[in-house]
Amino acid sequence: MTTEWVLTLSCPDRPGIVHAVAGVLAAHDGNITESQQFGDPASGLFFMRVQVELQVEAEAGREALTAALAPVTERFGMTWQLDVVGRRLRTLVLVSKAPHCLVDLLYRERYQGMPVDAVGVVGNHPDLADMAAFYGKPFHHVPVTKDTKARAEDRLRELVAELDVELVVLARYMQILSDELCRDLEGQVINIHHSFLPSFKGARPYAQAHDRGVKLIGATSHYVTGDLDEGPIIEQDVERVDHSRAVADLVAIGEDVERRTLARAVRWHAEHRVLLDGHRTVVFR
Amino acid sequence: MTTEWVLTLSCPDRPGIVHAVAGVLAAHDGNITESQQFGDPASGLFFMRVQVELQVEAEAGREALTAALAPVTERFGMTWQLDVVGRRLRTLVLVSKAPHCLVDLLYRERYQGMPVDAVGVVGNHPDLADMAAFYGKPFHHVPVTKDTKARAEDRLRELVAELDVELVVLARYMQILSDELCRDLEGQVINIHHSFLPSFKGARPYAQAHDRGVKLIGATSHYVTGDLDEGPIIEQDVERVDHSRAVADLVAIGEDVERRTLARAVRWHAEHRVLLDGHRTVVFR
Amino acid sequence: MTTEWVLTLSCPDRPGIVHAVAGVLAAHDGNITESQQFGDPASGLFFMRVQVELQVEAEAGREALTAALAPVTERFGMTWQLDVVGRRLRTLVLVSKAPHCLVDLLYRERYQGMPVDAVGVVGNHPDLADMAAFYGKPFHHVPVTKDTKARAEDRLRELVAELDVELVVLARYMQILSDELCRDLEGQVINIHHSFLPSFKGARPYAQAHDRGVKLIGATSHYVTGDLDEGPIIEQDVERVDHSRAVADLVAIGEDVERRTLARAVRWHAEHRVLLDGHRTVVFR
Amino acid sequence: MTTEWVLTLSCPDRPGIVHAVAGVLAAHDGNITESQQFGDPASGLFFMRVQVELQVEAEAGREALTAALAPVTERFGMTWQLDVVGRRLRTLVLVSKAPHCLVDLLYRERYQGMPVDAVGVVGNHPDLADMAAFYGKPFHHVPVTKDTKARAEDRLRELVAELDVELVVLARYMQILSDELCRDLEGQVINIHHSFLPSFKGARPYAQAHDRGVKLIGATSHYVTGDLDEGPIIEQDVERVDHSRAVADLVAIGEDVERRTLARAVRWHAEHRVLLDGHRTVVFR
Repeated sequence: MTTEWVLTLSCPDRPGIVHAVAGVLAAHDGNITESQQFGDPASGLFFMRVQVELQVEAEAGREALTAALAPVTERFGMTWQLDVVGRRLRTLVLVSKAPHCLVDLLYRERYQGMPVDAVGVVGNHPDLADMAAFYGKPFHHVPVTKDTKARAEDRLRELVAELDVELVVLARYMQILSDELCRDLEGQVINIHHSFLPSFKGARPYAQAHDRGVKLIGATSHYVTGDLDEGPIIEQDVERVDHSRAVADLVAIGEDVERRTLARAVRWHAEHRVLLDGHRTVVFR
Repeated sequence: MTTEWVLTLSCPDRPGIVHAVAGVLAAHDGNITESQQFGDPASGLFFMRVQVELQVEAEAGREALTAALAPVTERFGMTWQLDVVGRRLRTLVLVSKAPHCLVDLLYRERYQGMPVDAVGVVGNHPDLADMAAFYGKPFHHVPVTKDTKARAEDRLRELVAELDVELVVLARYMQILSDELCRDLEGQVINIHHSFLPSFKGARPYAQAHDRGVKLIGATSHYVTGDLDEGPIIEQDVERVDHSRAVADLVAIGEDVERRTLARAVRWHAEHRVLLDGHRTVVFR
Repeated sequence: MTTEWVLTLSCPDRPGIVHAVAGVLAAHDGNITESQQFGDPASGLFFMRVQVELQVEAEAGREALTAALAPVTERFGMTWQLDVVGRRLRTLVLVSKAPHCLVDLLYRERYQGMPVDAVGVVGNHPDLADMAAFYGKPFHHVPVTKDTKARAEDRLRELVAELDVELVVLARYMQILSDELCRDLEGQVINIHHSFLPSFKGARPYAQAHDRGVKLIGATSHYVTGDLDEGPIIEQDVERVDHSRAVADLVAIGEDVERRTLARAVRWHAEHRVLLDGHRTVVFR
Repeated sequence: MTTEWVLTLSCPDRPGIVHAVAGVLAAHDGNITESQQFGDPASGLFFMRVQVELQVEAEAGREALTAALAPVTERFGMTWQLDVVGRRLRTLVLVSKAPHCLVDLLYRERYQGMPVDAVGVVGNHPDLADMAAFYGKPFHHVPVTKDTKARAEDRLRELVAELDVELVVLARYMQILSDELCRDLEGQVINIHHSFLPSFKGARPYAQAHDRGVKLIGATSHYVTGDLDEGPIIEQDVERVDHSRAVADLVAIGEDVERRTLARAVRWHAEHRVLLDGHRTVVFR
């Protein structure tokens, strides 16, 4: 029986890394189907992602492979991760009222093989409960006011724990998470910001963009950190606009950019294509 | 004999503008070949650009047409401009050492029918004199140091006057013009900034972009005002980059974005397609 | 009470058209908010689209405006159409099993203000009935086999008549309409073909594209004529792919190109932005 | 002393390839700076490109590395190539009258570090001699008529031999090379075709595109084979156009697409990023 694995790793760059990793895989008769490497001269780090077919069962294979890799990962001081290709990441989607990102994520999960399993949808408004229901997803209404904000975050933490959540997606969730929650879930929360960061941080970016008269509007998907709109960027995209577009038009046009930018970021994250390089990302597409 | 004219105008929006303008043109048996209108609800202004064939000679036609339009332009309080389609704008190109924008502009003037006539090239360094010479353009070496900055600007003003310059293009000219000169030449100076404004204003934008880890780099062509990097935007474009690109790579990739962004802005300006709407632009492409 | 109208027209090009049309609108105190004109030297035809605010009620206005325009439309031999801006076109969507185009159209109707009213969904397979139901749309299962093809077309004609359908959208409907039906509904049926036409006509375009090793895949939305894949093109778009993509990947990537290409074509048609110029289209975006 | 090498290879896919190659490089204390691999399930071939720093001089290193690699390349039946990163490929550029591709290639060689050395320019018309001269390139006027075609090809072969040419670029050279010459130089001749192949093969592609009413025009850079416009595609790009563009406009807009598409193909070829996979290409960008 053949299982396809994906191994991602980073470590200080020095000769012999690829050979050492490939050696372990070759010793298991592994057939490399896709691989990319990158050495960053700026940070001095080396990054690698490899997909490999092994003649072992999924669970037994993980243990054997982990044990076999241990001498290599220790010798090079690697940060690494091993997963079965196509395993669906347990994902919690947070929304407010705007439907476009949620509609697109659920569509892609069901129909396009995006390897996420949306185990729940949380809304601080109830508007999108019917959309979640259509796709068979439990909807949790967790209202947020100034007074209930702390309680709402407790509920989020409960859901993350209960549902064994691996990834939180802020799909145009119009609330700011506390610094503490950001820290606790670091690297596991992806946001979509409706501007081409670092332009137009903060509130009402399309109104800012209209006022400045830009000729392209954009969206940015990034990991969430305590530093608002400053987390590591995973993906960005833009769309051409002209003088005839009012702010409301920019909002509507922007929805298309937002949903496709977020969808790519979520897919790449779920396929283990995104590695952290300080406050930047390496994306092996 | 047929001459094709281009008329551009803006005025406070109210009913009857198009009819009044079209009436004058129809009275001269004008055949409209291309026209666009736009009413901006935000500023309350109406903008129009019309190309029209008239059975008159170029110079006599200007006078007759101007006289015939006078009642309409006065009645509606229009800001307007009339020119012969294809007339080449007398243009002064300012450069430093980087060749990419100059190479492209001169190529487009000679081979692609861009309606500019580069009557001179000014460099604060002598590096690009040979390129100017190849295209038969007088090159003026006007060095700029802290001490000679005022004198250099005087020389620029002299050249603008002597050469009857209608448009100044800052083709990666690495000097900042004084507020006074910016004001005096308002609407006649086009700059290319090597970032997707308003991101990465000021110095070394590609280094800033690399540090922030953006996934697209861009360029912005805008009219120059006293407010650095804040003038009305004419055109912007971007190019996709990934983690593997060092700052030097971004600089090289960016050169292609810069030259095409600047070339479009200059062409549209020279074809009278760009109208000012406060600190924004209307571009009738 | 103000109503905004959209008038589209085409006729043999000659002086005075704009003035004549603008005159009628000015006589009704109309305020032009958006207008575009184009004279095609190849066909000798002139095209115009104008949005205008009038101080009349929607239905009474239509009659008055039509009467007032009559002398002009007759004098110039115009083909013309008048509608209220934002009126939703009664639309029948035909599908097979692939959900991506249907999902996107229904999403855009409900959430993005696309001015269509999908009065029914027809599937030759029952797979997408639940999606139609979620959006509150009647689903008609009309199976098609070699033997039932004629009967199925009769059913389509019945539905078009009963539901007063103005637009039929083939949203990846995997059946070919008969020549006769194509002729009867000419200019009212929009298809999405999953290649960058005229490349890869006919069946399995992504397999053809993979075999040829193209570096961009595309989609084409066009009016349906009796001549398969040869109807007037409304919109095309592409997406970059590389050697690593198998045919199945191209299919998945292509779905995004198809749905956005079709959505634009349907929106522009519904907003009366598409005019026929022989077997080409004029699109006033 | 450190030299950076680039090794490219392809062979039937089976386990152990990466490990074997990485082993040779590790034995020479090589530091891998960039590497990509791809296994094509369709052809059953494996492709690899690796850049590696070695502590040897350029020429001595080549011999040592070749000897060390021999057991591996033989064992796996590899087609392979070894070069020093940045070495400039000796290139002959063939032109007719259109300047845009030549201007761009010479600019990129001089100013943008494209690793080609244009050792000569051949024109069947004399028009571009001055451009070649400006960049210090010998220009060879080799006219082609029906009667002199064979003699002209002999002259081309002489130049290829005398100048030790490694790459021939058809930079809008409006002559068709003979089947025999195509075969003899297989994999060493890059052409730019002014359409998005396979659309609009043959003559006057922009006129064909205009007639068909396409909404994007494109260009295709490919290796030349005896089968006209059918060689393996290296790169394609497109540009949006609309109904208002006449054939002459498409030609002018297309020039920009052509020059950037050809420039990318030439650069990637010169950087050994393009590998042949039957009649398709693998491009490790």
